[in-house]
Amino acid sequence: MNSGEISQDMLAEYGTLSSAIISDALDLAGIHGTLIGLSTQVSGLRMCGPAFTARYTLAPAALNRFADFMDEIPKGAVVAIDNGGRTDVSVWGDTLSLFGHMNSFAGTVIDGVCRDIDGTRAVSYPMFSRGTYMRTGKGRVGVESTNAPITLSGVTIHPGDLIFGDDTGVVAVPKAAWAEVLAFARTIVHRDDAYEAAIRAGLSMADVWLAPDKT
Amino acid sequence: MNSGEISQDMLAEYGTLSSAIISDALDLAGIHGTLIGLSTQVSGLRMCGPAFTARYTLAPAALNRFADFMDEIPKGAVVAIDNGGRTDVSVWGDTLSLFGHMNSFAGTVIDGVCRDIDGTRAVSYPMFSRGTYMRTGKGRVGVESTNAPITLSGVTIHPGDLIFGDDTGVVAVPKAAWAEVLAFARTIVHRDDAYEAAIRAGLSMADVWLAPDKT
Amino acid sequence: MNSGEISQDMLAEYGTLSSAIISDALDLAGIHGTLIGLSTQVSGLRMCGPAFTARYTLAPAALNRFADFMDEIPKGAVVAIDNGGRTDVSVWGDTLSLFGHMNSFAGTVIDGVCRDIDGTRAVSYPMFSRGTYMRTGKGRVGVESTNAPITLSGVTIHPGDLIFGDDTGVVAVPKAAWAEVLAFARTIVHRDDAYEAAIRAGLSMADVWLAPDKT
Repeated sequence: MNSGEISQDMLAEYGTLSSAIISDALDLAGIHGTLIGLSTQVSGLRMCGPAFTARYTLAPAALNRFADFMDEIPKGAVVAIDNGGRTDVSVWGDTLSLFGHMNSFAGTVIDGVCRDIDGTRAVSYPMFSRGTYMRTGKGRVGVESTNAPITLSGVTIHPGDLIFGDDTGVVAVPKAAWAEVLAFARTIVHRDDAYEAAIRAGLSMADVWLAPDKT
Repeated sequence: MNSGEISQDMLAEYGTLSSAIISDALDLAGIHGTLIGLSTQVSGLRMCGPAFTARYTLAPAALNRFADFMDEIPKGAVVAIDNGGRTDVSVWGDTLSLFGHMNSFAGTVIDGVCRDIDGTRAVSYPMFSRGTYMRTGKGRVGVESTNAPITLSGVTIHPGDLIFGDDTGVVAVPKAAWAEVLAFARTIVHRDDAYEAAIRAGLSMADVWLAPDKT
Repeated sequence: MNSGEISQDMLAEYGTLSSAIISDALDLAGIHGTLIGLSTQVSGLRMCGPAFTARYTLAPAALNRFADFMDEIPKGAVVAIDNGGRTDVSVWGDTLSLFGHMNSFAGTVIDGVCRDIDGTRAVSYPMFSRGTYMRTGKGRVGVESTNAPITLSGVTIHPGDLIFGDDTGVVAVPKAAWAEVLAFARTIVHRDDAYEAAIRAGLSMADVWLAPDKT
């Protein structure tokens, strides 16, 4: 990754947020970064990290490559795989999840499907996809590119963009907007905390909406 | 609610049923009240109560209103939201679930999606929808009406209609049919109890089917 | 079942596999047996056994038959139901799951939907389908055939074919290919075990891929 790499402090702070808060912050920044149709396959886990990107293709010339990029993925990265939304061939299984777990990847998001989901759950590895299907992509799709821009659910993802996932879904924050989106997120967290305190204090909703202005 | 309000005894009895039993009773009454495509987002919880209805729209004139009806919702009500089946904008999050939990709502059903599902699960608030997505509807959709008829999965819901949800799905019972449907449901419960006892006694299925006639 | 019945030893060995391993073995045997779109409704359970087949139809002449075949299903069988992929009427509920549980069926797979899923979960009965919906098929669909070939997700299933399901999905192995597919599966298990040991030993992925050749 280049000099635009996210700081560990910023990354840790993003890790305390939620997909909804980041989405609202993206709205305030005028950025579309919500990835519709991708959902958690291991309920209860969050994922947060810079994207390592890979794109799969049906092109015969690429078929000799399949997940040969695993050793290039840095600790803490989210493996972001563009399989063109295909739901009939898997590009990730429990062997790769175990490797990701052992090598401290942040998790994997696939515009497509994965398999061996019980093995992935057994190591509590964060996994987001369009679902699960057991038929392997090996020999059916191959790696066209790594560390190049990809598309997930219609959103362009550049290597190193921040990807965050929780039980509600997955969002992406472009590198150029990390600081701006995080600043917006802080104001939203402050607002939501005020809402929560007001609700727990038993206020009417009309008064709850006014709570952030009073704190 | 008007004089046709459901009695607490009747409501409590409905709460012991299941979506399948109520569906069979609706069949016997000749009523279509099963809401296809709406599923639980908080596994293991039931929801049962009279509907408080709200309809969202894309019309710009309505955009200044968003969940401003929360203080009008009575204890025990199911918040029934018609967002036209839209899955790309959320109309409910954990702030509203917390308010519903604190104010004893029975739960929420949306022909659309919700967000912050982990926060909703944390307070065990019953939530049924087409799924989850984090992008807010605020500024994208607005409230067109409350306490007026709405449509959920193609079924017309009037304010005060009974709505019931479980892990299998969601059903609705019109006010005019509460007593009739409940009477049918009782005969079905009696039949199912006889089936279960016969199966647990080790009878063949041919004999199980005859069990209700013998009790 | 005929003389081609699967041996208990072979069945027990299949029961230790996964849908992914069986799928890879089917690939090596040149057989298409992966059933797309059918997923577990009772997370964490495996299903493995020879198929007892039933096909439902909308034909009025068949409407007097509904699940009247339960007493014909042998212990250990997977009840495989072709309801034409219909998601608007259920052909299985908790009464049948309880009967299956009491009579040691291996589980049920439906190209269609089931209901009463909480009751099915309560007895830990393996159930795979396109989802859940509470409206009964009784009076809406009827049994056209039993113990005859059916279609699940576009794959032809003959009575006695092996059906296996796990959290990733469902696969089928034709009777004529049991031994061949199992032999391929053994080599895959050996390979995967070598991969796993190499990953746990901290090898690079480039070396992990070579591990099976060294054991």
